[in-house]
Amino acid sequence: MSLKETGPSIAVVGVTGAVGQEFLSVLSDRDFPYRSIKMLASKRSAGRRITFEDNDYVVEELTPESFAGVDIALFSAGGSISREFGPIAVERGTIVVDNSSAFRMDEKVPLVIPEVNPEAMANIKVGKGKGALIANPNCSTIICLMAATPLHRRAKVLRMVVSTYQAASGAGAAAMDELELQTREVLEGKPPTCKIFNQQYAFNIFSHNASVLPNGYNEEEMKMVKETRKIWNDKDVKVTATCIRVPVMRAHAESVNLQFESPLDEDTARDILKNAPGVVVIDDRESNRFPTPLEVSNKDDVAVGRIRQDLSQDGNQGLDIFICGDQIRKGAALNAIQIAEMLL
Amino acid sequence: MSLKETGPSIAVVGVTGAVGQEFLSVLSDRDFPYRSIKMLASKRSAGRRITFEDNDYVVEELTPESFAGVDIALFSAGGSISREFGPIAVERGTIVVDNSSAFRMDEKVPLVIPEVNPEAMANIKVGKGKGALIANPNCSTIICLMAATPLHRRAKVLRMVVSTYQAASGAGAAAMDELELQTREVLEGKPPTCKIFNQQYAFNIFSHNASVLPNGYNEEEMKMVKETRKIWNDKDVKVTATCIRVPVMRAHAESVNLQFESPLDEDTARDILKNAPGVVVIDDRESNRFPTPLEVSNKDDVAVGRIRQDLSQDGNQGLDIFICGDQIRKGAALNAIQIAEMLL
Repeated sequence: MSLKETGPSIAVVGVTGAVGQEFLSVLSDRDFPYRSIKMLASKRSAGRRITFEDNDYVVEELTPESFAGVDIALFSAGGSISREFGPIAVERGTIVVDNSSAFRMDEKVPLVIPEVNPEAMANIKVGKGKGALIANPNCSTIICLMAATPLHRRAKVLRMVVSTYQAASGAGAAAMDELELQTREVLEGKPPTCKIFNQQYAFNIFSHNASVLPNGYNEEEMKMVKETRKIWNDKDVKVTATCIRVPVMRAHAESVNLQFESPLDEDTARDILKNAPGVVVIDDRESNRFPTPLEVSNKDDVAVGRIRQDLSQDGNQGLDIFICGDQIRKGAALNAIQIAEMLL
Repeated sequence: MSLKETGPSIAVVGVTGAVGQEFLSVLSDRDFPYRSIKMLASKRSAGRRITFEDNDYVVEELTPESFAGVDIALFSAGGSISREFGPIAVERGTIVVDNSSAFRMDEKVPLVIPEVNPEAMANIKVGKGKGALIANPNCSTIICLMAATPLHRRAKVLRMVVSTYQAASGAGAAAMDELELQTREVLEGKPPTCKIFNQQYAFNIFSHNASVLPNGYNEEEMKMVKETRKIWNDKDVKVTATCIRVPVMRAHAESVNLQFESPLDEDTARDILKNAPGVVVIDDRESNRFPTPLEVSNKDDVAVGRIRQDLSQDGNQGLDIFICGDQIRKGAALNAIQIAEMLL
């Protein structure tokens, strides 16, 4: 495939990271139309060569000048890079789709899951000559809301209790490497190398490594609480979350208990989910086949199963569900590129 | 250490299994007084030699005659063996502490966690010449209630939402071996051997392998629901659980959301848990140090952390906590031997 003749001029910021690499893979898979593409990263990675869709690129150092003539920039280089270069890009007329948490809770910035709240970015389009920021939600939030939203639309979620089973990929490619290295070391009876995380990850689980806030929640958990309210445009929805890392490579799982305003029986819920875009139902009780992180790895769809009426709530007011989604794909790169597609 | 001169005559049924071996280890660690000990197992394992506390034993085949003169029998050989040989042992005057699920919900059989409901077995003692059955609860139930009960006593739990992170050990020693084997295979790029579980366990998580019932809960989850009601002697307590296996060797973790009748603030809860027998609090927000399965492996105490006021409930009516406990030890062998100690 060669460069397209029409389409926007795009840039990938943080192209050498796990999500950056996935941006390229998803752009290609979806045959995203672009006129030109810039590969941007830190000075340290500048000069590296990348072959993409039969063309050779040299990774360029990210500078304010990088955005000249760029219509859409996909950012995944961490919050501080986004805070510094996001506004610079917008000033130069670029629409930034930002995968960091830098702008997610900024009232002026839409926080978008295309299947959930496309209306939040309805006024932002390429070709108007105006820059803008759009934030990609946290991976755990995206995966949760992909399944919870279709049910919320039907019966209104009043409260969600979430426990996550999060993969190494959420902490980047180096964390995935560390999990593999540690596992080899432990199997050989050696002490595990702990650089990315401060404790053994192989054959272990631990509370998410995000900073813990004074209220006892960690930042990952508070993202789920706050982003859900913003994405659903519902200040009253009650969410609590416990975020845990498990020794899995690249897909997250979430056990979600839902309390609804209106009754919702499990069969109706299953039907709703079967018809939800970007969702696949895997819910075979007889053969004990339900979603697993391995099964959704490198897949676009979020998988939902264990759909059952919550015995601890009266009158069909509650459901338990179990969700798995690829953290790098729908949890990050795919969602951002779906946002970019809506800009065209 | 040699045989004690006083103390009961005991038998270990299923002595070659993971829990059976742990029975021996815990008996020794706690210097349990016994006059004699019989090593019992299936015909297949009969004849194997075991050295225990400096004495050599030959594993004997379990038969109805095995219980002659046995005061206490510790069973961990699966439900069908318990159903067949439990009543036979009781008839011969033996007190059976059974680790299977066979008798747990039998109204006449006490279901006991010594720190929680010792009163349920108050009338059963060695030396009365009367056999009896006492059931050891499910491992996930024990670990959950060790932490939840002290809080329940203070503020009355109305509802619990539990998500588990369960280790391989719950499925026995062969499952632990399979996890290790599979992990080696996956690291070598080979397809994983799936004999115990019907899918890849290495670097993956999946819904607990227990059968799924018509209500959509699996048997492991329903154990938590029903056993909690029985142990707390509270038919109204509402429990929902989602049980998931994670690639960890021998300790379970549980994310538990609690709703109370009376307000309970997190500082009070932490103090209550610090003073609870068999519980250790690991709850250092600043250094992000909380309980992990690895840390509690081979330990007696259940560890609790992430103790925080649930933001999704008003008026301090809720808490989120995260619990880890050794599945083989407090989840099975230790609890059974603590029960045996109360019989003396």
